[in-house]
Amino acid sequence: MSNTLGQAIKLTVFGESHGPYIGGVIDGLPPGLRIDTDYIAAEMAKRRSVAALSTPRREADVPQFISGVRAGFTEGTPLAFLIANSNTRSSDYDKLRGLARPGHADYTAHIRYDGYEDARGGGHFSGRLTAVIVAAGAILRQALESKGILIGSHIADLAGIKDDPLNSEEPAADIRRLNSMDFAVLDENAAAEMQERILKAREASDSVGGVLETWITGLDAGIGEPLFDSFESELSKAVFSIGGVKGIEFGSGFEMAHMQGSEANDEFAMKDGRVITLTNHNGGINGGITNGMPVVFRTVIKPTPSIAKAQRTVNYINAEEARIEITGRHDPAIIHRARAVVDAAAALVTADLICRQHGSRWLV
Amino acid sequence: MSNTLGQAIKLTVFGESHGPYIGGVIDGLPPGLRIDTDYIAAEMAKRRSVAALSTPRREADVPQFISGVRAGFTEGTPLAFLIANSNTRSSDYDKLRGLARPGHADYTAHIRYDGYEDARGGGHFSGRLTAVIVAAGAILRQALESKGILIGSHIADLAGIKDDPLNSEEPAADIRRLNSMDFAVLDENAAAEMQERILKAREASDSVGGVLETWITGLDAGIGEPLFDSFESELSKAVFSIGGVKGIEFGSGFEMAHMQGSEANDEFAMKDGRVITLTNHNGGINGGITNGMPVVFRTVIKPTPSIAKAQRTVNYINAEEARIEITGRHDPAIIHRARAVVDAAAALVTADLICRQHGSRWLV
Amino acid sequence: MSNTLGQAIKLTVFGESHGPYIGGVIDGLPPGLRIDTDYIAAEMAKRRSVAALSTPRREADVPQFISGVRAGFTEGTPLAFLIANSNTRSSDYDKLRGLARPGHADYTAHIRYDGYEDARGGGHFSGRLTAVIVAAGAILRQALESKGILIGSHIADLAGIKDDPLNSEEPAADIRRLNSMDFAVLDENAAAEMQERILKAREASDSVGGVLETWITGLDAGIGEPLFDSFESELSKAVFSIGGVKGIEFGSGFEMAHMQGSEANDEFAMKDGRVITLTNHNGGINGGITNGMPVVFRTVIKPTPSIAKAQRTVNYINAEEARIEITGRHDPAIIHRARAVVDAAAALVTADLICRQHGSRWLV
Amino acid sequence: MSNTLGQAIKLTVFGESHGPYIGGVIDGLPPGLRIDTDYIAAEMAKRRSVAALSTPRREADVPQFISGVRAGFTEGTPLAFLIANSNTRSSDYDKLRGLARPGHADYTAHIRYDGYEDARGGGHFSGRLTAVIVAAGAILRQALESKGILIGSHIADLAGIKDDPLNSEEPAADIRRLNSMDFAVLDENAAAEMQERILKAREASDSVGGVLETWITGLDAGIGEPLFDSFESELSKAVFSIGGVKGIEFGSGFEMAHMQGSEANDEFAMKDGRVITLTNHNGGINGGITNGMPVVFRTVIKPTPSIAKAQRTVNYINAEEARIEITGRHDPAIIHRARAVVDAAAALVTADLICRQHGSRWLV
Repeated sequence: MSNTLGQAIKLTVFGESHGPYIGGVIDGLPPGLRIDTDYIAAEMAKRRSVAALSTPRREADVPQFISGVRAGFTEGTPLAFLIANSNTRSSDYDKLRGLARPGHADYTAHIRYDGYEDARGGGHFSGRLTAVIVAAGAILRQALESKGILIGSHIADLAGIKDDPLNSEEPAADIRRLNSMDFAVLDENAAAEMQERILKAREASDSVGGVLETWITGLDAGIGEPLFDSFESELSKAVFSIGGVKGIEFGSGFEMAHMQGSEANDEFAMKDGRVITLTNHNGGINGGITNGMPVVFRTVIKPTPSIAKAQRTVNYINAEEARIEITGRHDPAIIHRARAVVDAAAALVTADLICRQHGSRWLV
Repeated sequence: MSNTLGQAIKLTVFGESHGPYIGGVIDGLPPGLRIDTDYIAAEMAKRRSVAALSTPRREADVPQFISGVRAGFTEGTPLAFLIANSNTRSSDYDKLRGLARPGHADYTAHIRYDGYEDARGGGHFSGRLTAVIVAAGAILRQALESKGILIGSHIADLAGIKDDPLNSEEPAADIRRLNSMDFAVLDENAAAEMQERILKAREASDSVGGVLETWITGLDAGIGEPLFDSFESELSKAVFSIGGVKGIEFGSGFEMAHMQGSEANDEFAMKDGRVITLTNHNGGINGGITNGMPVVFRTVIKPTPSIAKAQRTVNYINAEEARIEITGRHDPAIIHRARAVVDAAAALVTADLICRQHGSRWLV
Repeated sequence: MSNTLGQAIKLTVFGESHGPYIGGVIDGLPPGLRIDTDYIAAEMAKRRSVAALSTPRREADVPQFISGVRAGFTEGTPLAFLIANSNTRSSDYDKLRGLARPGHADYTAHIRYDGYEDARGGGHFSGRLTAVIVAAGAILRQALESKGILIGSHIADLAGIKDDPLNSEEPAADIRRLNSMDFAVLDENAAAEMQERILKAREASDSVGGVLETWITGLDAGIGEPLFDSFESELSKAVFSIGGVKGIEFGSGFEMAHMQGSEANDEFAMKDGRVITLTNHNGGINGGITNGMPVVFRTVIKPTPSIAKAQRTVNYINAEEARIEITGRHDPAIIHRARAVVDAAAALVTADLICRQHGSRWLV
Repeated sequence: MSNTLGQAIKLTVFGESHGPYIGGVIDGLPPGLRIDTDYIAAEMAKRRSVAALSTPRREADVPQFISGVRAGFTEGTPLAFLIANSNTRSSDYDKLRGLARPGHADYTAHIRYDGYEDARGGGHFSGRLTAVIVAAGAILRQALESKGILIGSHIADLAGIKDDPLNSEEPAADIRRLNSMDFAVLDENAAAEMQERILKAREASDSVGGVLETWITGLDAGIGEPLFDSFESELSKAVFSIGGVKGIEFGSGFEMAHMQGSEANDEFAMKDGRVITLTNHNGGINGGITNGMPVVFRTVIKPTPSIAKAQRTVNYINAEEARIEITGRHDPAIIHRARAVVDAAAALVTADLICRQHGSRWLV
């Protein structure tokens, strides 16, 4: 089914923006995995708003564990958790009834669910549900870290403002630094400029998009499956489940359209007895399987569709053209928050692919 | 498992480049679906080489049906088919034994499969296996066409040479024209220039990449699943299973990083009693679900990794650095062939997502 | 994963006997399905204890819906629900720490989960989790009833005491009568005798088992899948997930070992323009697919393993032989309660198999 | 999908009785598993007819490997194989056109597949397809044997004639003896009597059924999953996919309806530092998970439905009552052949459940 990700490690997500809780069930976790609630809380915080930049809707977002955890360790049975939806203001949405917010799923969900969908705040299609992905991902991400596998992202491009690249020879320090930041940008000047750009978008009742670049380091060669469950296939499937993502590329990605084979091919060499590649245009993946180099991918996050500017739209209940002004609390950019979700999705997929080969006890 | 795609319509792929056959099993097809072998043959031909541009290895690639078909109609039980591997020259590969071809899966497959992989011609990772995807996709593509759903691609960009855009108001005629072409480019001048560029790459013992743009029209609004099985998730998963694909974007894709919400949002309007959007930056998909506009996505195909130029590499059997010169028959570009595979993958995913909602008899 | 049942309609179960909640997520439900909480409550009541016969532990067992339901109708997105575990007395289990209760999963769960399992009250292996199956099954059972498909069971045999058979020509009235009963036995004398037998077992600090016979009527011919997902395969898989089930047989089942083909074959005939069979030794299923006759199967429920009698066992923590006396509240029979679970499992499987063929909107 | 069994080790089955081939694809096998064609041939022989007792249709049934095997070892990629259908006599079936053979799937398949099914010889529902299960099972069975896990069955009861029980203390010798036999019965007198009974059934143009008892020894405690993928759930699902199976019971099975808890509970004890149970009424499984004792289950095989006696039936094409006389070659009993299939199914399920926990490399 659609709301479940993974095979060896399976996450099922449920909930709506304005219901009492959203939540998840993770099946397939090994017994004896440490659950560090501080670590999870830190990830949840990254997904929440950054002062001044984002929506004032702030939720504690502490996952409440219902099953599968005792005394700080997984039991191996399904781990279920809830995250309370406090602070929902349904009235914000009442006046939007029947109006399709451009760039949102209101209209498509209405058709898909025959009018029975919970339209308030995007319902099941709300970005709110990414909190479940972040909570689940944090559990796996910590497990991967304990095995030397690091995951981290930076905002490589926000509305044209670029961050410095990571140190490709020694990315671990940069990744750790990014993971300690609320606004994941290496270059302080770029960070300041980006934040200014976001505030400017807010003033203009508009929003901005950007590109996240994500790194996974410490992966052994040989992870991934052939054909339909390649590392790229599984990762892209997970990442496209995040609202606002409209593209993903690995390594040099779309630039490869303008490269020649002799440039794009990553030549192999030996270093300290290990096989490496001299470049990493293929983003650490050959034939869908990791080659031991860092996995690098970029995700484009579209500008937040909720903008205060008046827009043309339709009322899909009475099939009439209409105008819409979205007044509620909304982010002029979500990329700095989406980063926590992309990292979490990467953790879930990486852990799943490793456990498919080696069994889930590999994580412990 | 990795070698199976889809839920309602499931394709399982098997085989290696130098085995006796490659093949597939399609489970979930409704009974009574027409199987038109001419249609399939035409799709297979598009995937095969285009004179002068591609490798002289030509295979008839006629799928031999083993089960599930009788008197030109599906039975509803698993449809299995084989495609013979004639014309394999294993000796071409013998001298490459242990040498990791840069950009290929030789090394990663060796690690993944503990040295038991069939390395000849890429084995299970060979582009050869895409013939199975094309054959299976042709069956579904024809079924979709009979329901008014058209799928087609053009080479939007080859090494920087761009094709004209499709007529976005009335794309059907362009799609039909593309589907009748061997080299799917709308602008004849661009087509000639691209072919010249490919030949030049061959002379230089090198290769080129490009970008395919694919359209799916005639889709009702409401197709796709929330979260992990969104239209984008399922399509990207399928497309990344094709060798050489390193990126995918929907609608305006990566350009959205530089757009504002007020530009990127596709405003809704009514036209002839139907809901439409005035622009299509979201590629026909909102919240992972079709909105009734054409689904448009772009796929980057990297330059063919098999090039005649000498390259640095390693021998992964004895863990030594080495040089490699690939002398066999290889394409200086695969994008014009990959197009048939991307179309097939799109057909498989589209049919699967429709049948998940409506049952597979919808196709008949 | 193990804790998920079904393909078109998927139920995921989580929770432990002594956690705050148990619960479930149903994915794949169509939008617009009525949720009748009274109907669900009635099913939950059947699973709860019958005065004097069963454990005094009584829980209201009202499922609290978290998502996927609004104003009494499904939304089509994942329906999640919780059932509170009130009235747990962990102290009852403290003195059993490390002692494997014979006939229970204490020891096997300990090995399976490396000692991290929640052993209190059976944890994830507790019969308590069948409440989730009953709640989920009630939703589908009601949907099936609205389409003319009836499901019901009686206690055909309790410790050798047999009930009357159903009226095989016109079973609907008997099924409706059984579904209105707490103790599902057609023959009042047999019912009284069975209840006496249960009380006698309690006095003897012992327990009794029996056989449930379940009927599904109103099914069209043609439901079920070939081979591994036959109606029998899917039903048996679901039923064996219920604690205490050690056997299942369809139609004449094990008696067929002593029949000849000419007896066991159900001859076909026409009746009122419909194909029927003159006997029903095959339990309404030929080749794994329904033939339009009632589906009839029998499930053996072993005597409750929790008995007050002293038993030999081991302490699996210190690997020593031990004695165990189980003093808590326990049922001398569970068959009258298991009946609600078997009915629910049958509803889930039947609905799933129908929806796989026809799409889930068939249910609405 | 219906034609695929397993999660870590997945078998997909395709083909029809009168097509050119039947076959299977096994996905998830580890690389480096030995493929012993003699071992497979021996299993295939057990499934084939026994002189005088069975149908004269004899097929060499040598699986032809298409992919996934090289030089006697698995590659780790999908292993596909074909088995040729030689010696089919479609004319035997022509006169049966539209006549529903009682006890067969002709009618149900006709309804299920809208009349597009291949009805010749049962098509996809033919017992012929069990050859694929046997071939695939042989590969896993040999792998399990190399790890000390033995699987074997005997005909415990044929038409009321009973075999001796296995030596429950030391079953390995009995299992090995059974595995070397064509007609798997421990007691020679019983074997002779059973064969006589089968021949008598043939003379009477009739057929007989029986009960197989299957043992799996050498399994560690802790194998199996909770709830829906319990050892019993997965095994029963696989076994009910075999034509003619109408019931399955584990351990004391249906006898438990007449036992008290104090009898049915298997008390635990220590023996040579290992936990054992003093009895094995639960068939080696507690809570769906193995407890280290032999897994024992019994399967009832109904009398062969193809009998020469005239029977009442319907012609489902013109919806009329009819008579049928089945003249082709048919077995008066299939239980001695079904035994190879049940063993194979047990091997597939056991291997799958082990590999889900430990990864598939456990098998190598």
